[in-house]
Amino acid sequence: MNPERYAKGAERLKQMKNTSTIGSRLRDVSPDLDGYIKEYAFGDIHSRPGLSARDREMVIISALATLGFAQEELRSHINMGLNAGLSRQEILEVFIQLSVYAGFPAAVNATFVAKEIFAERDAQGIDV
Amino acid sequence: MNPERYAKGAERLKQMKNTSTIGSRLRDVSPDLDGYIKEYAFGDIHSRPGLSARDREMVIISALATLGFAQEELRSHINMGLNAGLSRQEILEVFIQLSVYAGFPAAVNATFVAKEIFAERDAQGIDV
Amino acid sequence: MNPERYAKGAERLKQMKNTSTIGSRLRDVSPDLDGYIKEYAFGDIHSRPGLSARDREMVIISALATLGFAQEELRSHINMGLNAGLSRQEILEVFIQLSVYAGFPAAVNATFVAKEIFAERDAQGIDV
Amino acid sequence: MNPERYAKGAERLKQMKNTSTIGSRLRDVSPDLDGYIKEYAFGDIHSRPGLSARDREMVIISALATLGFAQEELRSHINMGLNAGLSRQEILEVFIQLSVYAGFPAAVNATFVAKEIFAERDAQGIDV
Amino acid sequence: MNPERYAKGAERLKQMKNTSTIGSRLRDVSPDLDGYIKEYAFGDIHSRPGLSARDREMVIISALATLGFAQEELRSHINMGLNAGLSRQEILEVFIQLSVYAGFPAAVNATFVAKEIFAERDAQGIDV
Amino acid sequence: MNPERYAKGAERLKQMKNTSTIGSRLRDVSPDLDGYIKEYAFGDIHSRPGLSARDREMVIISALATLGFAQEELRSHINMGLNAGLSRQEILEVFIQLSVYAGFPAAVNATFVAKEIFAERDAQGIDV
Repeated sequence: MNPERYAKGAERLKQMKNTSTIGSRLRDVSPDLDGYIKEYAFGDIHSRPGLSARDREMVIISALATLGFAQEELRSHINMGLNAGLSRQEILEVFIQLSVYAGFPAAVNATFVAKEIFAERDAQGIDV
Repeated sequence: MNPERYAKGAERLKQMKNTSTIGSRLRDVSPDLDGYIKEYAFGDIHSRPGLSARDREMVIISALATLGFAQEELRSHINMGLNAGLSRQEILEVFIQLSVYAGFPAAVNATFVAKEIFAERDAQGIDV
Repeated sequence: MNPERYAKGAERLKQMKNTSTIGSRLRDVSPDLDGYIKEYAFGDIHSRPGLSARDREMVIISALATLGFAQEELRSHINMGLNAGLSRQEILEVFIQLSVYAGFPAAVNATFVAKEIFAERDAQGIDV
Repeated sequence: MNPERYAKGAERLKQMKNTSTIGSRLRDVSPDLDGYIKEYAFGDIHSRPGLSARDREMVIISALATLGFAQEELRSHINMGLNAGLSRQEILEVFIQLSVYAGFPAAVNATFVAKEIFAERDAQGIDV
Repeated sequence: MNPERYAKGAERLKQMKNTSTIGSRLRDVSPDLDGYIKEYAFGDIHSRPGLSARDREMVIISALATLGFAQEELRSHINMGLNAGLSRQEILEVFIQLSVYAGFPAAVNATFVAKEIFAERDAQGIDV
Repeated sequence: MNPERYAKGAERLKQMKNTSTIGSRLRDVSPDLDGYIKEYAFGDIHSRPGLSARDREMVIISALATLGFAQEELRSHINMGLNAGLSRQEILEVFIQLSVYAGFPAAVNATFVAKEIFAERDAQGIDV
């Protein structure tokens, strides 16, 4: 692996105030897949200047809600989206908009994930 | 159908400078489906205040690229996204970001649709 | 929102003897998404005369089983399908037919949802 | 392969007045895949008594429209659905219903396939 | 159903040292769907000579990870793949390779299923 | 971009005797996406030692056929798979196996792509 790109990705996740345990749970079974997430997904791509972190999270949340099967990743990116400046209302609005393109079940299921995240953040006293 | 909501949706499409022929080609075979696109998709949803038109198009483009099979709709929304203030570079950046979540084939195929739209707009002297 | 279309959708859900809690759980986080389900999905569309309620549920169950990720919605529509006149055998037959087009995993997973619904209805003394 | 099941499937396709060339184009490259379509898809499954041919086609059309990428198969089954007693209006209604679950792009693209089939049948003087 | 093809499929599953309970749980609700899995999926197809059992499982695991929604089937086929000669490292490598085509969420979720299987096999003293 | 990883990916594509024009057509619209395909998809991942090139292509072909919408990428990887030692019969067998998991339409459409590739290679006097 490439320590510099890995460190850049890990730093980006820290900036995004990532709290997901996906990375640590992945590391002991497939350290290289964890490595590529740090290096490629966050070091190379998420850190690019062409879109704001807030816009990137809007794009990612839209893709994950459309895929439909990636609920843990959606959970992680709703948190990062809120940390990056998306409001709760904007995230709910994304799912209302997606009802048209990905269908209501995808929109509803994503909204239920958001509901859980909002409750968790409320319980932790995080007011965004 | 509901003439007021239909008119609101048609007006929204006009504001977005829609040039797609999906509506007119749909109208003579399934006028009601065309009607629901105007009423629900654009009259009710796309016209909502919670997100800017530019953000809505970013969400829609992300969903359509992820679905992978909706190339004509993607073509129409890349055009509307550019009309709503997304730059060409931002749209290409959306697809680079999606390579991580929807995979490279979805990202590449969406980029090829964008390439065609950019060429068409160049040929029409549209410089955004 | 539109109270008349909302009422029509809520009435349709009542006619279908809907027992799903999706609507109530959605209402406190995204009342507008719940609203569009009532207004558009059930008020505008499900209430249309062009297909019987039984046929609509057959179509919906086929779509949900094919999507593969919408198990809670599938659960709700298997119930409504049975309430609308589909027999248990017909629902199982739909999934056998879908093995050809959506693949065996989609067919099997949908059958397991049906199995749970049938057991719940048995426990409640509902004999269809 | 199994000649009896193959013959049963071929007979079923004939009863459905299948005009698709999928089988013949498949036969010279992968005769066994063509064989399994005859044997399993049509000999074993489509011929089962549990659902009418009309209902089976409604299920299949719903699945294919939801998959989104199977336009040639959709074309073939819209034809068989019409031959089995589904009306043109019912097929268009299926796609209106699917806008809710599979999203508008899937519904619109399926409707365009139906439009082509209706035109072809008109040109051939087939009035259903 | 066809007792000979059923027996052949059941025998194949036994050779693969299948431990999944999908079949037995399916049998009491939809014995015919269980029958087609034995007859078609394992009797006709998995038993064909054209690819080794190890290669078939690599193909199946790739398809299931890409679908994203078929985690129980993936669990069953990771076990059969290991029984057929795929190493744990090869299975993890398949998911690393899939990150490029199906996206990271599909790859990560499949890796988490593999992690569970590896732990179960360790607990049972199975060292492959 | 990273010249070393880019060169490694370009070299890998050359070893695989890639003839697809995806890269060159991508380069003038989104050079960075082309760059990540070279760097990440082929430089980092496809070049890893954990699986043979033949096995990687079998995995990729299975994923692309399952996605259903990635026909140009499938075309490119059927060619690379044949160059890496998969026989034509093995590729057709992969699609027969996938009929069970991804459904017949995905299997049939992939087989038609293979048929075109085989004809092109015959026309070019390539006998594998």
